[in-house]
Amino acid sequence: MNKPSLPKGTRDFGPQVMARRAFILDTIRNVFQQYGFQPLETPAMENLSTLTGKYGDEGDQLLFRILNSGDFLKDADNHALAAKNSKEVVLSIAEKGLRYDLTVPFARYVVMNRHEIALPFKRYQIQPVWRADRPQKGRYREFYQCDADVVGTDSLIGEAEIILMINDVMARLQVTAFDIKVNHREVLNGIAEVIGATGKQHDLFVAIDKLEKIGEDGVRQELQAKGFTSGQTEELFSIVKINGNNQAKLQALEKVIKKSNRGMQGVADLKQVLDLLTRYNRDDAHTKIDLALARGLSYYTGCIFEVTIHGVAVGSVSGGGRYDNLTQAFGSKEKLSGVGISFGIDRLYDALEELNRFPAGMHAASTVLVCHLDTNCLHYGLGVVAALRTHHIASEIYPEEAKLKKQLEYANRKEIRYAIVIGPDEINSGSLTLKNMVTGEQESLPLGQIIKQINP
Amino acid sequence: MNKPSLPKGTRDFGPQVMARRAFILDTIRNVFQQYGFQPLETPAMENLSTLTGKYGDEGDQLLFRILNSGDFLKDADNHALAAKNSKEVVLSIAEKGLRYDLTVPFARYVVMNRHEIALPFKRYQIQPVWRADRPQKGRYREFYQCDADVVGTDSLIGEAEIILMINDVMARLQVTAFDIKVNHREVLNGIAEVIGATGKQHDLFVAIDKLEKIGEDGVRQELQAKGFTSGQTEELFSIVKINGNNQAKLQALEKVIKKSNRGMQGVADLKQVLDLLTRYNRDDAHTKIDLALARGLSYYTGCIFEVTIHGVAVGSVSGGGRYDNLTQAFGSKEKLSGVGISFGIDRLYDALEELNRFPAGMHAASTVLVCHLDTNCLHYGLGVVAALRTHHIASEIYPEEAKLKKQLEYANRKEIRYAIVIGPDEINSGSLTLKNMVTGEQESLPLGQIIKQINP
Repeated sequence: MNKPSLPKGTRDFGPQVMARRAFILDTIRNVFQQYGFQPLETPAMENLSTLTGKYGDEGDQLLFRILNSGDFLKDADNHALAAKNSKEVVLSIAEKGLRYDLTVPFARYVVMNRHEIALPFKRYQIQPVWRADRPQKGRYREFYQCDADVVGTDSLIGEAEIILMINDVMARLQVTAFDIKVNHREVLNGIAEVIGATGKQHDLFVAIDKLEKIGEDGVRQELQAKGFTSGQTEELFSIVKINGNNQAKLQALEKVIKKSNRGMQGVADLKQVLDLLTRYNRDDAHTKIDLALARGLSYYTGCIFEVTIHGVAVGSVSGGGRYDNLTQAFGSKEKLSGVGISFGIDRLYDALEELNRFPAGMHAASTVLVCHLDTNCLHYGLGVVAALRTHHIASEIYPEEAKLKKQLEYANRKEIRYAIVIGPDEINSGSLTLKNMVTGEQESLPLGQIIKQINP
Repeated sequence: MNKPSLPKGTRDFGPQVMARRAFILDTIRNVFQQYGFQPLETPAMENLSTLTGKYGDEGDQLLFRILNSGDFLKDADNHALAAKNSKEVVLSIAEKGLRYDLTVPFARYVVMNRHEIALPFKRYQIQPVWRADRPQKGRYREFYQCDADVVGTDSLIGEAEIILMINDVMARLQVTAFDIKVNHREVLNGIAEVIGATGKQHDLFVAIDKLEKIGEDGVRQELQAKGFTSGQTEELFSIVKINGNNQAKLQALEKVIKKSNRGMQGVADLKQVLDLLTRYNRDDAHTKIDLALARGLSYYTGCIFEVTIHGVAVGSVSGGGRYDNLTQAFGSKEKLSGVGISFGIDRLYDALEELNRFPAGMHAASTVLVCHLDTNCLHYGLGVVAALRTHHIASEIYPEEAKLKKQLEYANRKEIRYAIVIGPDEINSGSLTLKNMVTGEQESLPLGQIIKQINP
């Protein structure tokens, strides 16, 4: 039999990684709940009619499709089979696919439960998604998304609170050096308008988005290839490179795009978001208007966000924005505007690891291992381990008779912080030996005091 | 466009259901951790070479298979395609399948990480699994399993602690009337031996397992059909119907199966488990030796468990047992004995709902909605909502200007417990109106006192 293996692009999460991931996920979940977002979970499998056509052609190709159960070829088209036409055959043999993101299932949920939902609806969702992408460093075929959205209102309080939530998440994760880049799709549309590139926004956005990655010259080349004149390109750069603090940037921007109504609407929104933020009486040194922020995904229509952590090479750890119409793709006539944020757990994990920000001793193991020198001591130890647990101290007893050395080695390998050693003397005196496995110190104490010491 | 729908046998979990499920899952996770079990997560997708052949023919048919990406028909066998031979074709077009349970991925993980794992290894795993079963009441195609296993020791402390964990989970869920049925596969083998049915254990176990469902006569018929004599059947019943408390049962059982070494080994194990339990100094009125408990799944070799809650028609809510050799199916030569327990979340949920055991107000919504009478009040409210959150009170502000009635209706629909109403008078006086949305009472208080009252 071959050695078992994992499908490429997928991972197991063992105890230590799980503890660290739980630290990140619990932090985010907690912040979301603090702001009134409510949890939602949707199935891993969705009907392909729900998924296809929502992520563009490339997205459709990256969907994992689930083979129909039973005799799946029965109704397949004979000609398509004979021609080995995979694209044709797939339509008749697979009805379901794996969740590709959390937004489309959210939209489907809203459409299906519209009458029970009180608007504005604030939901968060933390679940894995699957993409048949080519795996590479930091890119997996199964990964968690971690989204919060508020839909059913176009109030910019949604935008302001997303910025606050990002601040809170970073503070709780002890990340202090980061930027929340903010821009607005209508500002970008306005820029396109004033440089005479209306109708070519898509090419413009895609190119600008690469500024950090490929640099100014790279963007210039790409825009040239797409038919932009060098005049347009230079005008573009003169705008996206406007300097200064947020207020100064917006003032300068207003002057150059005042002819564009859409652009001015974007500026007004950004101003209001900044104004709202001051009213929460909180410090926010991290919000940075960034006129070169575009965010590739095309469904955003208002404010857009992206979060980067200084000094780590992991890319953005969070992004989001406002969209016009969540449920449009499902033919809903009601226009539900919303704004959302998504945290990238894998990148956050890598960043925290690089910054050494995971609290020490985070490994999800027991706090105490009860060790014993003979059968009688083992039996005595069962009462000890029960008492520890009653006092909410995660603990275990070495389950077999074994040399003390072996028991202590087990504690070390599992990074268990304390060992309690029980020998005949300990039973007689009622004072147990408490060994600190980190410092090596040990002392003799009654169980009651051990419990107080471990769990003050 | 058609209305979107869910694949059959799958479910969305909205805010209230999520809060209740989290209550159950957090309880179980907490107990597992208290006993020193460490978290593991494995990918939703496994290679089919890992999954197939592990669950019997029926299980293999219930696996969800994932279509290979890209031009999946390219290498499919032409003859099999022409013959529309689904069973043959599937082998060349699907390499991966969805996780069917948590035990096989756990075994695969142990084999792949054997050198990093300190034995005994105690892991828990809480994740969804998928089965292409015919959906019916209480049976879904996607459902969570919630497993804890300790492997690498045959110490019966494992069994004893599983019984303790079940007690703890039930106590925390406030379920008081339940049975933990315990039996032993070697006792069943011993019974088979003494009634002269060695070699036919499988039929015997399957039939006995149905005792509660189809009654004595039903089992008699099934055994007759399988070629058991009526003498054997009556002898079987005389044994499984032995009465009395645990000790009395085991004593009576010893007398009738003393000729079977295997049977006597089973009795000795059960006695030791009961003895170990007394040494934890804990009350356990729930453990019941049940000689008719067999548990269909065939990989158990020692103690077996099943938990039923009185007065609810949901079937067993938990089950497990000891197995000889976790990693055998992956060709591992090292014999890793283990014992595990699995909780059925959906059944526990149904049981708690039937018993009305979910704490009131469990809905994962904000605690406070901040309401406002005009723009100025809304702006003032942003500072209020920020202060509440600083004091860990989950809260939100109604994000638009709206009639107070509409804002309070929103609080009601979302079952938000308190509304703080801010009008011009409130801003002038510094005393805000706190409205208890459950009782309807309202009072005028400074924000500091409101925070103390809500979050004492």
